[in-house]
Amino acid sequence: MTEVFADIITIGDELLIGQVVDTNSAYIASELTKIGVTVRRIISIADQATSITNTLDESIHQSDITIITGGLGPTGDDITKQSLATYFGGGLILHPETLKEIEQFFTKRGAKMTDRNRKQAEIPDMCTPLRNRIGTAPGLLFRKDNRTIIALPGVPFEMKALILEDVVPVILSNFNLPVKLSITILTAGLSESMTADLLEEWESNLPSEYTFAYLPSIGILRLRLSISGKNEDNLKRQLKYEANKLVQILGKKHVFGFDDDTLPSVIGNKLKNINCTLSVAESCTGGYIAHQITSIPGSSAYFMGSATTYANSAKSQLLQVSDEDIVSQGAVSKKVVEQMAIGAQQLFGSDFSVATSGIAGPDGGTDEKPVGTTWIAVTTPHRIISQLFFFGDSRERNIIRASVTALNMLRISIDEYSKK
Amino acid sequence: MTEVFADIITIGDELLIGQVVDTNSAYIASELTKIGVTVRRIISIADQATSITNTLDESIHQSDITIITGGLGPTGDDITKQSLATYFGGGLILHPETLKEIEQFFTKRGAKMTDRNRKQAEIPDMCTPLRNRIGTAPGLLFRKDNRTIIALPGVPFEMKALILEDVVPVILSNFNLPVKLSITILTAGLSESMTADLLEEWESNLPSEYTFAYLPSIGILRLRLSISGKNEDNLKRQLKYEANKLVQILGKKHVFGFDDDTLPSVIGNKLKNINCTLSVAESCTGGYIAHQITSIPGSSAYFMGSATTYANSAKSQLLQVSDEDIVSQGAVSKKVVEQMAIGAQQLFGSDFSVATSGIAGPDGGTDEKPVGTTWIAVTTPHRIISQLFFFGDSRERNIIRASVTALNMLRISIDEYSKK
Repeated sequence: MTEVFADIITIGDELLIGQVVDTNSAYIASELTKIGVTVRRIISIADQATSITNTLDESIHQSDITIITGGLGPTGDDITKQSLATYFGGGLILHPETLKEIEQFFTKRGAKMTDRNRKQAEIPDMCTPLRNRIGTAPGLLFRKDNRTIIALPGVPFEMKALILEDVVPVILSNFNLPVKLSITILTAGLSESMTADLLEEWESNLPSEYTFAYLPSIGILRLRLSISGKNEDNLKRQLKYEANKLVQILGKKHVFGFDDDTLPSVIGNKLKNINCTLSVAESCTGGYIAHQITSIPGSSAYFMGSATTYANSAKSQLLQVSDEDIVSQGAVSKKVVEQMAIGAQQLFGSDFSVATSGIAGPDGGTDEKPVGTTWIAVTTPHRIISQLFFFGDSRERNIIRASVTALNMLRISIDEYSKK
Repeated sequence: MTEVFADIITIGDELLIGQVVDTNSAYIASELTKIGVTVRRIISIADQATSITNTLDESIHQSDITIITGGLGPTGDDITKQSLATYFGGGLILHPETLKEIEQFFTKRGAKMTDRNRKQAEIPDMCTPLRNRIGTAPGLLFRKDNRTIIALPGVPFEMKALILEDVVPVILSNFNLPVKLSITILTAGLSESMTADLLEEWESNLPSEYTFAYLPSIGILRLRLSISGKNEDNLKRQLKYEANKLVQILGKKHVFGFDDDTLPSVIGNKLKNINCTLSVAESCTGGYIAHQITSIPGSSAYFMGSATTYANSAKSQLLQVSDEDIVSQGAVSKKVVEQMAIGAQQLFGSDFSVATSGIAGPDGGTDEKPVGTTWIAVTTPHRIISQLFFFGDSRERNIIRASVTALNMLRISIDEYSKK
């Protein structure tokens, strides 16, 4: 069993002028990785015959599998099919079964079929067509010198259906693949370099069948641990063993979930489990926390609402924050943020509440309270916790970091409350 | 003046296993395209020394410019810097000025600098560092055989700042590029195919020195018109002339701005001009409108606050919506959304207010009010306007489309009010 390599080639001028982000490649790469194929390169090129054939030729010489998307459509700039036919030394022929399928596609939708659509049944004479059940351009499967080459339409949902229904089964039957498993550990409140220091010893002792990657984003660091080998059950056990070690080193204060979890989804599940509700009071985060929470389907089961109180008058009128404290302590202060949290808890009649007050910037900073200064408070049915943070200079980043930090404080507080 | 070609190379295992979508390349491609550089290929490869040097070598032989992102971080899997030093036949040296900048970065944040961070001041001895003003990894500029090679950190906001502040100026000074001017016309409430129909005649008569592109995103369609040639003043005049035609065809109800404008920035400027304030009442949009408005620096000058009233009890208690109307008409109704807007206007004492109530999905739809059904209301000091919309099936898209539509209704209402 040797490693099986794949290249992904996406074709389209719109990718090279930055008009469209190539999301197809990540999808294909993820599906190939799942079945143990190693993706060697992802290449985006123009709708241009020589680019297509040169890149394909290079790929066939280096990788076992080449997946191509784009340029199979019915318009003038779609030249992938002709380029492939030329490269493999043949021509286009009308494929009767594909024509029948395209005719049925239009009949079923009560739409009129044009000559342009009819041409989509023309395929290179040395390929096997892969049936497109939800569109008109079929996938094209070529074999050459023990290599597998597959061209797919670029429309994401058509491409995805073909990957799952045809491409993956073809690859599984053509190659003897190793098993590869991954787990992603999600952390909040840890920087990449802090974490690397914490994990230095663990990482240096990690056996060679593992790979480990740091995936940082604002306020959140994802850590991906992968293993490959032969026996799936053994690999699962080994992966779990090392992942548990990681969680122990990093601590539950920082580790909030795994794989596709998000802070708002984890919080939502915890609140549903203990049948509790939540409200939010935001100043510097300006609605972003509420937006994160309400991005989760079904959040209306536990989310009562939020007050974004930008003006001081709104803080006092809606949330009963003392005008005196706003004047004496400033809006960005422990006293004010705690009153905001309690005010929201009472206003919305919720069990938990989280509040933020900070200076997002770029204006409003002082020597004593520079841009980035942020107070966060969480109330539970039993107690109130508040903490001061200093984030950075960027308004956009401060809003996101304050929101992530507030959600993580809330998550920890829900856990503490549940244990009582 | 010959065509200048660039390759973009993004480095990171996370791209090849499909865990992360490469959005950096589209950004870089778009900025290079703007200044008249032709992007030949975008290539994603693994954090692996031979991959990096082979791909770079191939690129240098074919393109004038190579932009590399990723693998400049402080952890073990970041090997770009060492690979570049080896490729260019040198080693890493400690760069005193960069070290000083990194030290200042940590001092300013009151954070502790580790040995790992100090290592980020080590750069290949044959490169010029490009100062990273918002992070710790500097960009690296190499020149070889008339080629320009630039390595940038993969963190998007650091990469973006370096592209604008260093990479674009370096390229403009190293190459003799054609003059290329662009204007982007921003529209809300128009679909791509509707717009294509409206513009069919105009587009078919567009002289060949222009290029025109549709850039759709959720609820917003940007139209980029570009022209290239030699005389900048003439090009400017020509571009303005065609852009004006476009605005006339599409109408001011749909065209909300140009280039870097956003709906919240346009609204903010209008409110500041007439010295008026704004509040928001959100149900289905869950805080996203408030977040959009508060993303604008200085929004505290006109934004009073918002109430996200997810629970019906919050609608009646905070916004004085009639419980009877909620029961008889449903929370997603003209009566309720208008009361929400008026309630927010009174609660926050603002001049304008905008409110949303809809079924974001995936649950909560009925035959009469399917998922996507959304009421939006805007109050001005003089009147109230409300409208019913049917968006789609996706929760994420419904939240964004409802927010964009609400902001566009608000923009039109402010214009109407200002004219009185």
